[in-house]
Amino acid sequence: MTHHLPVGFRFAGVGAGIKASGKKDVTLIVSDTPAAAAGVYTQNQVVAAPVVLCRGRTPLNDARAVVINSGNANACTGAQGAADAARMCEIVASCYASDVQPEQTLVMSTGVIGHFLPMEKVEAGIRQAASQLDGSQQAFLDASDGILTTDIGRKVTTRECRIGGRTVRIAGIAKGAGMIGPNMATMLCCVFTDAPLSAAQAQHMLSVAANKSFNNISVEGHTSTNDTMVLLANGQAGGAEFSDREQAEFAEHLEAMCIELAKQIPTDGEGATHLIEVRVSGAASEADARKISHTVASSNLVKTAVYGCDPNWGRIVSAAGYAGVPIESPKLCLKINGIALFENGEPLAFDAKAASASIKNNRTTLVELAVGQGDGACTHWTSDLTVAYVEFNSEYTT
Amino acid sequence: MTHHLPVGFRFAGVGAGIKASGKKDVTLIVSDTPAAAAGVYTQNQVVAAPVVLCRGRTPLNDARAVVINSGNANACTGAQGAADAARMCEIVASCYASDVQPEQTLVMSTGVIGHFLPMEKVEAGIRQAASQLDGSQQAFLDASDGILTTDIGRKVTTRECRIGGRTVRIAGIAKGAGMIGPNMATMLCCVFTDAPLSAAQAQHMLSVAANKSFNNISVEGHTSTNDTMVLLANGQAGGAEFSDREQAEFAEHLEAMCIELAKQIPTDGEGATHLIEVRVSGAASEADARKISHTVASSNLVKTAVYGCDPNWGRIVSAAGYAGVPIESPKLCLKINGIALFENGEPLAFDAKAASASIKNNRTTLVELAVGQGDGACTHWTSDLTVAYVEFNSEYTT
Repeated sequence: MTHHLPVGFRFAGVGAGIKASGKKDVTLIVSDTPAAAAGVYTQNQVVAAPVVLCRGRTPLNDARAVVINSGNANACTGAQGAADAARMCEIVASCYASDVQPEQTLVMSTGVIGHFLPMEKVEAGIRQAASQLDGSQQAFLDASDGILTTDIGRKVTTRECRIGGRTVRIAGIAKGAGMIGPNMATMLCCVFTDAPLSAAQAQHMLSVAANKSFNNISVEGHTSTNDTMVLLANGQAGGAEFSDREQAEFAEHLEAMCIELAKQIPTDGEGATHLIEVRVSGAASEADARKISHTVASSNLVKTAVYGCDPNWGRIVSAAGYAGVPIESPKLCLKINGIALFENGEPLAFDAKAASASIKNNRTTLVELAVGQGDGACTHWTSDLTVAYVEFNSEYTT
Repeated sequence: MTHHLPVGFRFAGVGAGIKASGKKDVTLIVSDTPAAAAGVYTQNQVVAAPVVLCRGRTPLNDARAVVINSGNANACTGAQGAADAARMCEIVASCYASDVQPEQTLVMSTGVIGHFLPMEKVEAGIRQAASQLDGSQQAFLDASDGILTTDIGRKVTTRECRIGGRTVRIAGIAKGAGMIGPNMATMLCCVFTDAPLSAAQAQHMLSVAANKSFNNISVEGHTSTNDTMVLLANGQAGGAEFSDREQAEFAEHLEAMCIELAKQIPTDGEGATHLIEVRVSGAASEADARKISHTVASSNLVKTAVYGCDPNWGRIVSAAGYAGVPIESPKLCLKINGIALFENGEPLAFDAKAASASIKNNRTTLVELAVGQGDGACTHWTSDLTVAYVEFNSEYTT
């Protein structure tokens, strides 16, 4: 499989010894020319040092680099943590003489909370990564591996698209599999493109895409201290800025790719045996649909029912009822994997064995809930709640 | 153990065959004289028929009876369900010629969602219960057993107290162990007293007590369609209405008893090995403290950590951070079972083995989080999240 890598970006991922396992734990991504950069961050009020730093820097007109370490979240680390995050950017800049400034560098961390970064290892790792930077397929994959923690699978997506007669390329990498155990925290996502975007355009499109993708996924609903998503656009595809119509086309691609990456997180959720896709339609507003889909997807009873291959409509309907938005029971209609279970507020007779088999035989369980009030719609993706999740997250770790 | 039963109440609990197990499933409680009655109900918008009926009747000046069935929630049952709930009250009234009116009767149901009540069995059960009504200790315990579903233990509390030179008695029964599997729904609680209260007084005191007790517990946070709590006060202890000061004394007893009953639910939570008591103090307001304690108590990562006897402060602090209220990290202080783990936003060195042993060796885990902003405090009780919970709730049930 060939990945469509944007022009003018180089990548590296190395093992710096931050993770005891020896796996890759420092990733560096550099744009050869200044890039517009946008960021979307965790809504947790307890935030890690790198989040504070990046939040202050984006949107940014002339970003050059993103440096990421895994194995340590640099969260709950006070003034030392803030200094270490800033220092990571300085180290990157120092690898490029006067070509890259610390202020042109974004930084992310993911891993255990409450421990100071081993800065000697981090510095050696960044310098090694800088020396290995490359635009190759392998370098891109190394970079995507360097940000993983408890993830089982690598999470990447790329595409090449024609927009207004121009070819542009977009590439994204992500990580996340839970809030995460042992003490791990974070979902991270970096998207890179050679399309010509201003920082304001990038910020707007990234915020919209985040709202349709990473803001609509959960594993256990525990918002981490480190969640970060950035978009870098260096314009190396050439040509003038996008027209409104071209921007809209680009935004569609961006959103689709973010959804694709986002869905990989609950699919790879700790102990998960199913991806649950909760599609709510007919709500009074999109905000209402979001609350309902999020509440259904967050119910441990819904998540254990899917794990048990149980088409348990009572748990879904009752979860919708406590989402905090007006619900008219007599208008509710529910389908699981296309099988109608509940219509206009009344349970239907259905083939329970067939419905259960359908859950059992598909990795994705599709829950469609129509609430009959308006045009508001939202889709939320989550993992099921399994014995393996509890075992994994209850192992003694401190 | 002798229970202090209020004067003028009679009880019965019988097996009517609604539960396949043959266990008691119809409870009847009658006050010999008209009683002031108050109710507090589920905040779910999908509500069972008996909730709709009772919500319309309370506060009530002249209640005479409470009838409860377990084994069937009479939820999501449409017009037929509403008729059946009303019919249960009519059956009770018919057992007393013109002495008790249907409108003087409250009704509750708990059990499986989406099935019509087997009204022949229900009617026979109510008539049998009416014929067995008794003020004895055994009759009280039978009544408390008749409302249980997946509960392992019976949940009762009674006390006799001197208020302003008068002796009054208060008795409470409750049920609940989860939202609940297989398809079970509901926490129920009935409190009876021979104290002289008006319906308005009863309603006010019950609402306040609910806010400190049953509104602060969770097993998995799935708000059911049937949650109901009622207070009946028949004044049989004699004497005039309470003075303001006596009312306050009574309210303190009521609140303490409600907390005692409420805590029994997560203690008996499905698969639970620990009761987790989350005490938040120093919040800007009580509402903020409530949001923080509820969010920490609802985190699957916090709940699995306690199951694993892991003093995982990172999960607790980060959960506080996404409670949706302003948090100042540098002011956060956290103790688990009295052991300080986190102070003024920084992790402390602590004896991890001793902290883990303390969780392991106590049924209750005490989490104390001080947020350093004001006087707002709230305590929330929940159960830990265990492998047994997931197994229990994922068994195929439809």
